[in-house]
Amino acid sequence: MHPSYELDKSNMLERLRKIEGQVRGIQRMINDGRYCIDILTQLAAVQAALDKVGLMVLEDHTRGCVAKAIRDDGGAEAIEELMSVIGKFIK
Amino acid sequence: MHPSYELDKSNMLERLRKIEGQVRGIQRMINDGRYCIDILTQLAAVQAALDKVGLMVLEDHTRGCVAKAIRDDGGAEAIEELMSVIGKFIK
Amino acid sequence: MHPSYELDKSNMLERLRKIEGQVRGIQRMINDGRYCIDILTQLAAVQAALDKVGLMVLEDHTRGCVAKAIRDDGGAEAIEELMSVIGKFIK
Amino acid sequence: MHPSYELDKSNMLERLRKIEGQVRGIQRMINDGRYCIDILTQLAAVQAALDKVGLMVLEDHTRGCVAKAIRDDGGAEAIEELMSVIGKFIK
Repeated sequence: MHPSYELDKSNMLERLRKIEGQVRGIQRMINDGRYCIDILTQLAAVQAALDKVGLMVLEDHTRGCVAKAIRDDGGAEAIEELMSVIGKFIK
Repeated sequence: MHPSYELDKSNMLERLRKIEGQVRGIQRMINDGRYCIDILTQLAAVQAALDKVGLMVLEDHTRGCVAKAIRDDGGAEAIEELMSVIGKFIK
Repeated sequence: MHPSYELDKSNMLERLRKIEGQVRGIQRMINDGRYCIDILTQLAAVQAALDKVGLMVLEDHTRGCVAKAIRDDGGAEAIEELMSVIGKFIK
Repeated sequence: MHPSYELDKSNMLERLRKIEGQVRGIQRMINDGRYCIDILTQLAAVQAALDKVGLMVLEDHTRGCVAKAIRDDGGAEAIEELMSVIGKFIK
C-alpha cells in the first residue's frame, strides 16, 4: 500500500534536499565566522521550510490515512494520533 | 575578530551535523514509504533541535556583539536588529 | 444543529474565562510596574493556555465537522480549510 | 525606579485591553455556537496580538534592564534570564 504522501513524494524530497543543503550552508557560515544575525536568519528560513514540509505531510495524512480511518471505523484513534502530532508542532 | 559564538562553535557544528543527518534520514523515511506520523514526529524533532541551535547563537550574540554595542554606543541599533531576528523565530 | 465542540463547551468557556483573568492580571502587573521578566512569563503562560483551547477546538472540529464532510462528500474542502487554520497556529 | 517599559506602558495596556475584549468575544462566539474555524481564526489572532506585546516587553527589557546590567556588571545573569524567557516563547 502506498503512503498518503505518495503524490507529493518528489516535491517533499526536493524540499528536504534543499533544506539539507541549507543546514550544510549554515555549518559553512559558522566555519567562516559569519555574522550571528545572518546565521539566525538562515536558521529561521530552515524552520519555515520545515514547517511547509510538515504541513504537506499533515495534509496528505489527513486526506489519506485519517479520512480512510474515519470511513472505516469512525477514526477516533487516528484523530487522537493526529492531534498529538499537531501539538508537537504548535508548542 | 572572532564572532560571538567562537566558544560554542564546535558544539553548534556538531548539532548541525546531527540535524543534517536527521534531514537525510527523513528523506530515507519518505523513500521507504514510512508512516506519516513517524515522519511528522521526526520533523518536529528537527525543529526542536534547530530551536536549540538558534537559542545558542542568540545567547552568544547577546553576550558578545550586543553587549559590546551597548557599552560602545548604547546599542540602539544592535538591539533593534536583535528584536527583529527574535520576531522571526517567535511567529 | 450543535457545533462540534458542544461537549467541551463548558470546559472551553472555563479556560477562556481564566485566560481573560490572566490578561487582566498582566494589565495590573504593568500598572504596578512589575518586573519585565515576570510579565513575559505570564504572557507565555497565556499563550500556552490559548494553545490548549486551540487544540481542543481543532480536535472537536476534526472529530465533528471534518469527519462528517469526509463521510458526506470526501471532505476535500473541509480538509483544505483545516490545514489553512493549522498553518496559522504553526507559523 | 521606573520599569523598562515605562514609555510603552499605555500602548501595551491598550493592546492588552483589546486582547481581553477579543478573549471575551471568543467566549461569546462559543456561547452562540459559532463555526469552529472562525473560533480558531480568532484564537490565532489573539496569539499574534500577544506575540506583539511580548516583543515590546522584550525589547524594552533589553534596552533597559539588560543594557543597564551589561554596563554595571557585565550582564551575565541578566542575559541568562533573558534567554530563558525567550526560550518559553520560541518552543
